[in-house]
Amino acid sequence: MALSKKPVTGMKDILPEEMEIRDYVISVIKETYGKFGFTSIETPCVEHIENLNCKAGGENEKLTFKILKRGEKLKIDEAKEENDLVDGGLRYDLTVPLVRYYSAHAAELPAPFKALQMGNVWRADRPQRGRYRQFMQCDIDILGEASNLAEIELILATTTTLGKLGFKNFQVRINDRQILKAMASAAGFTEEQYDDVFIILDKLDKIGEEGVKEELAKAGYADTSIQTFVGLVTSLQNAENPIAVLQNDLVAKGNLDAVVVEGFEQILDSVRASKGDYFELVFDPTLVRGMSYYTGTIFEIAMPEYGGSCGGGGRYDKMVGKFTGNDVPACGFSIGFERIIMLLLENGFKVPGADKKTAYLIEKGMSKERVSDIMKEAQAARANGQTILVAMMNKNKKFQKEQLNAQGYEEFKEFYKEELKR
Amino acid sequence: MALSKKPVTGMKDILPEEMEIRDYVISVIKETYGKFGFTSIETPCVEHIENLNCKAGGENEKLTFKILKRGEKLKIDEAKEENDLVDGGLRYDLTVPLVRYYSAHAAELPAPFKALQMGNVWRADRPQRGRYRQFMQCDIDILGEASNLAEIELILATTTTLGKLGFKNFQVRINDRQILKAMASAAGFTEEQYDDVFIILDKLDKIGEEGVKEELAKAGYADTSIQTFVGLVTSLQNAENPIAVLQNDLVAKGNLDAVVVEGFEQILDSVRASKGDYFELVFDPTLVRGMSYYTGTIFEIAMPEYGGSCGGGGRYDKMVGKFTGNDVPACGFSIGFERIIMLLLENGFKVPGADKKTAYLIEKGMSKERVSDIMKEAQAARANGQTILVAMMNKNKKFQKEQLNAQGYEEFKEFYKEELKR
Repeated sequence: MALSKKPVTGMKDILPEEMEIRDYVISVIKETYGKFGFTSIETPCVEHIENLNCKAGGENEKLTFKILKRGEKLKIDEAKEENDLVDGGLRYDLTVPLVRYYSAHAAELPAPFKALQMGNVWRADRPQRGRYRQFMQCDIDILGEASNLAEIELILATTTTLGKLGFKNFQVRINDRQILKAMASAAGFTEEQYDDVFIILDKLDKIGEEGVKEELAKAGYADTSIQTFVGLVTSLQNAENPIAVLQNDLVAKGNLDAVVVEGFEQILDSVRASKGDYFELVFDPTLVRGMSYYTGTIFEIAMPEYGGSCGGGGRYDKMVGKFTGNDVPACGFSIGFERIIMLLLENGFKVPGADKKTAYLIEKGMSKERVSDIMKEAQAARANGQTILVAMMNKNKKFQKEQLNAQGYEEFKEFYKEELKR
Repeated sequence: MALSKKPVTGMKDILPEEMEIRDYVISVIKETYGKFGFTSIETPCVEHIENLNCKAGGENEKLTFKILKRGEKLKIDEAKEENDLVDGGLRYDLTVPLVRYYSAHAAELPAPFKALQMGNVWRADRPQRGRYRQFMQCDIDILGEASNLAEIELILATTTTLGKLGFKNFQVRINDRQILKAMASAAGFTEEQYDDVFIILDKLDKIGEEGVKEELAKAGYADTSIQTFVGLVTSLQNAENPIAVLQNDLVAKGNLDAVVVEGFEQILDSVRASKGDYFELVFDPTLVRGMSYYTGTIFEIAMPEYGGSCGGGGRYDKMVGKFTGNDVPACGFSIGFERIIMLLLENGFKVPGADKKTAYLIEKGMSKERVSDIMKEAQAARANGQTILVAMMNKNKKFQKEQLNAQGYEEFKEFYKEELKR
C-alpha cells in the first residue's frame, strides 16, 4: 500500500520557500490591478471537451489532459476513439474559459468588464527544465472597451505591477497588426501572404535584415515587394519620429487609416506621460506575436537583463464574436507568472517587509500552568502582529536553532522547568 | 463553433462579488496561520491513479475524476476496464497529496512541519444545492509533533482565524478516541465492536439517550454493556469536573492511561487560558468524527447560529506510517472553506477596510494631451493608495454611474472636452 512518492510526471510539489514568493507575487498582482478597477474571477479547471476542441487554442489543443466519462456514460466496449471516452478536459489556457464565462454572464457583469484571472492550466507537453505540465497563468483582460483606454490601462497596470516586484530597465514593445498589414499592403503582398511574411519578419532580431530578405526571397516573393517592405520596417526602426513616417509613408498613400495612427500615438503619449523611469515603451515595427486572433495593438514585455519576454498581449476584437455571434471589443495582457517566479528565485528575492520571526522553545516536562502561561504570551504577541512559532525544545538544541534560523527565525525565547543553574 | 456557455455539470464560475470575499478569506487564513509559523505548500491537482485508489479516501475514491492516458500508452482496443485507460486523476482531498508530499520531501522540510494547504479538490458527486464537484479545501497540519502542543496550536490558530473573519459564539467540541475506547472497554465491548458502537453514539444529539440505548440493543449488545457505556457518557456530559470523572471512573479502574487525561486537560487549560471570549471550548464525550484513522484527540467546530459544523480534525499518528513504513506523529484541522464563504455571502459580509473607489469618466473626443494628463492624475492617485477606474463616459451617464455605484464606486470625477456651460 506504499504511495508513489514523486508527483506525476512533469508536475511539481511546491516547497515552502517558493510558496512564500508565489503568495507574495499573487498578492501584489491582485492588489495592483485592483487599484485599476480590475476584479478577480475564477472558472472551473475542468472545461467541456467540445470547448477545448473548438480550434481556439492552436497547438495547445493537442496537449489536453482529458477526463474519462463516469458511470453509465462510459462505454468502453463501444469506444472507437478518445472522444468517445471523455466528456471534459483540464483547461490548457485561460482564454477559452474567459470567453465562455463572459458569454454566460455578460448581463451580470460591469461594462466594460475588467477581469483578472489567475489559475493553473495543464498541457501534456514534453517535460523540460523549467517547464511544467501544470503551471499558473495570469491573464488580465478588458472586455467591452473599444477605445485605446484599454491598452493604456493594461500597459500602466502591468508595468506598475512589475515595478512593485522590483523589476526595472525592461521594455514594453508595442506594434499594431494594422500597421503591419499596411506595410505589407504597401509593399504589394496579398492578404493571404501576410501571416507568412510576418512570421519571417518576426525573426529579424535573430537573423538580421539580410536574413529576412533572404528568407522572403526563398519563399518566392517578388524582389520589389521585399525591398519595399523591409525598407519600410527599417525606416520606422531608425526614425527619430516614427509617427511622422507612418503618416507620410502609409497614411498619405492610403494604406493606413489616420485614426489608427492617432490612436497608436495616444497610447505612446499617455503611457510615457504617466510611467516611471524604470521601463521604456518602444514602438517596434518588427513585433508580430504569434496568435493570428489579434486585430489591433500588440505588445510584449522584453527583459533583456533576464534573457527574454515576461508577458504580452494585444487587442482581439473578433474573438468573442466567433463564439457567440456578437463581436465584443477586447484587449488583454498575459503575464508570464512562472517565469517571473523563476527570475525572482534565481535572483535570491526576499519577500519585503516580512515580520521578525520568534521561536519559543519549551523544555519538556513543564507544568501545565507554565505551558498555559507561555501559550498565552504567544497569543498576545501574535495579536500584536508578531510571528511566533512554539515548539518543544529538542535534545540537540543547537541544531534545532540552526534549523529554525534557516527558516527565518532570528530570535529565540527559551522556557525552562526551573531557573537555570548558572 | 459556438461554445457551451455553462460550466461543466456541478462546477461553477465565480463572479466578482464572491471572488472578493474568497480572496479576502484566503488572505486572512494565510496571514493568521503564518503568525503561528505555518508555511504554505502546494501539490499538483493531478495525482497518480494508484495513490488515489489506495484506500485512504474511503467513499471519495469512487468519485474520482480520472485522466485518460496519452499517446501510445492509450490502447483503446485492448482496454477491459477503467484502470486500463487512465494513469492519473484529480485529487479528491488534500490528505493523500500531503502524505505523499511529506514522504517525498521530509528531509528538506522543517521538523515539526507546520503546513497550510489550500486548493481545489474534485468529486464526481451528485450535484446538489451548495455542493459542487470542484471546491476549495483548506487543511492545516502539524507533522512530527508528538506533544499536545500540536492540538493547542491548531485550535488557537483556527479559532483566531475564525474570529478575524467575524465569527463568534461558536463552540470547539473536543474529545479523544482513547477516551471513547476506554469507555467502551470499561463497558465490556470488544475492540471489533468499538466502531459500530461509536457510530451509534454519534447520533446522540439527534435521537437522544434513549434512542442510542435502543439502537445498541437492536444491534444485539448486552444490556449491562449498554447501561454502563451510556451511563459513563452521560455522567461525563453532566459532570461539573469531567476530568475528575475520567480519573475516578476510567483511570483508577485501569481502562485509561493517566497520561492521556493529563494531556487532554493540558489542551483544555491552555486553550481556555489564551482564547478570547468569542468561542467556547467544550469537552464533548459524544463526539466521534467519522474517519477511523484518528488515533487520539478529535475536535469539531460547531456553529449553532449558522446551523452546522465549519471544520474539524484530530490526531492521526498512524497514517503516514501506513504509506511509508515509518510512523510520524500528525495532527490536523480541516476548515470548511466553502461553507464559510457561503455563510459570509448569506450574511451580507462586506470586506473590511476596502478603499474608497473613484471612477474617472472621460468625455469622448478629448484631446490627446488632456487624456495623457488624466491618466497621469489617475496614476498618481493610485500610487497614493486609491482605487481609480478610468472609463469613457457613456451617452447615458446616469445609468453608467448607477452601475458603477453598484460596484462600489462612490466618487466620480468627470472630465469634459471644454468647460461646461452652466
